Amino acid sequence: MSRDQLFLELATRLGYVFEGELRAGGHYIPVLCDGAYVYVSGQTPRIADEVVVQGKVGTEVTVDEARFAAQICILRALDFIQKELGSLDAVERFLKLTVYVQSAADFSQQSVIADAASDLLIQIFAEHGKHTRSAVGVVQLPANATVEIDLIVKAKA
Amino acid sequence: MSRDQLFLELATRLGYVFEGELRAGGHYIPVLCDGAYVYVSGQTPRIADEVVVQGKVGTEVTVDEARFAAQICILRALDFIQKELGSLDAVERFLKLTVYVQSAADFSQQSVIADAASDLLIQIFAEHGKHTRSAVGVVQLPANATVEIDLIVKAKA
Amino acid sequence: MSRDQLFLELATRLGYVFEGELRAGGHYIPVLCDGAYVYVSGQTPRIADEVVVQGKVGTEVTVDEARFAAQICILRALDFIQKELGSLDAVERFLKLTVYVQSAADFSQQSVIADAASDLLIQIFAEHGKHTRSAVGVVQLPANATVEIDLIVKAKA
Repeated sequence: MSRDQLFLELATRLGYVFEGELRAGGHYIPVLCDGAYVYVSGQTPRIADEVVVQGKVGTEVTVDEARFAAQICILRALDFIQKELGSLDAVERFLKLTVYVQSAADFSQQSVIADAASDLLIQIFAEHGKHTRSAVGVVQLPANATVEIDLIVKAKA
Repeated sequence: MSRDQLFLELATRLGYVFEGELRAGGHYIPVLCDGAYVYVSGQTPRIADEVVVQGKVGTEVTVDEARFAAQICILRALDFIQKELGSLDAVERFLKLTVYVQSAADFSQQSVIADAASDLLIQIFAEHGKHTRSAVGVVQLPANATVEIDLIVKAKA
Repeated sequence: MSRDQLFLELATRLGYVFEGELRAGGHYIPVLCDGAYVYVSGQTPRIADEVVVQGKVGTEVTVDEARFAAQICILRALDFIQKELGSLDAVERFLKLTVYVQSAADFSQQSVIADAASDLLIQIFAEHGKHTRSAVGVVQLPANATVEIDLIVKAKA
């Protein structure tokens, strides 16, 4: 299966809805190409304008719910990348993910949450999905989102 | 009006004070050029060595005060960029802003705070001010600053 | 003394243990080269699989303990860079450090913690250790680590 097919299949299975046009949640642009480098703005777990997982992991949100949030964040990022590059086949590799997890004061499994996003990249891009990453626990995120992920991607020349 | 004039006018209107030499708040450099890429260290809302907006948005600080803080952060970043490049006319575009907002546990309008910085870039640079962005709510910032912003800029060749 | 010798001496003095193979704490890679650019994943103060400084600065952890944590984070990053590039002599410069400090709600000396990492780079790399930096206070970090640091490095051509 091609990357675009795998992406469509995973997105459908997880309930992600494709919209005609994606909007940023503020006065910025969601994705920007600088030569081969693609910067993706921080993505929250939005499906059709609704943030589907809200609150702090460890108290209001379970680990499984937060892992689902991380998957929706990365699907939304891939949606933007696909629209920008025409196809996910145009991705050479992922350079860096930063995963912000809205965390209760004593919740320290941010890596487990971030792994759900990382695993999805590996499922679709195999070796080319490997990336560096930082995962941190923040006190809040826009619209009370449980997870926010930004990334830098390199496109094929 | 040129970008440098617009910057001076906006800075003056907001009460930003230009100093002969800007200092970093720690053992690092405020701005670094790597070829056409300009990295700017995290800027807090400092005017002449005083952090003018301190505390958490949602409890100690209002949204309007935090938006003012975000404007001072970005003015300070532009001050460094102007000193480094000689003129803001040398900026090609802004690639990425990361906006850290010191937030009360239930304050989730980080995007509204960050928009004040984003709007200022659009005011001065129009189309060239468009950028990708992440906005997150953190528990604290250096010197109790309400906002910290770092950025990556591309200069003209 | 060469950079590699200085690094070994400082690491030994601080009790950092060199392992045969370093592992990432999740489903990502610790270091990635994109041409001359080296991205290093967020490093916590791990010595041989143990996070040696845990908890929040300001309540559970002192400033000195957190500064030690920052030093171990950067030593671990240098360990990865040395293994990737063969020698620290291959480093041209450090472009950007992001220092996440697990902070009590009213602790605002993140710059003092981050300076411990910045100073270590200057000790080993002198002028070439100068870098831009952001330091922020987060509510939690993976494995309850007190500090996490990621970086972007430029290697010699």
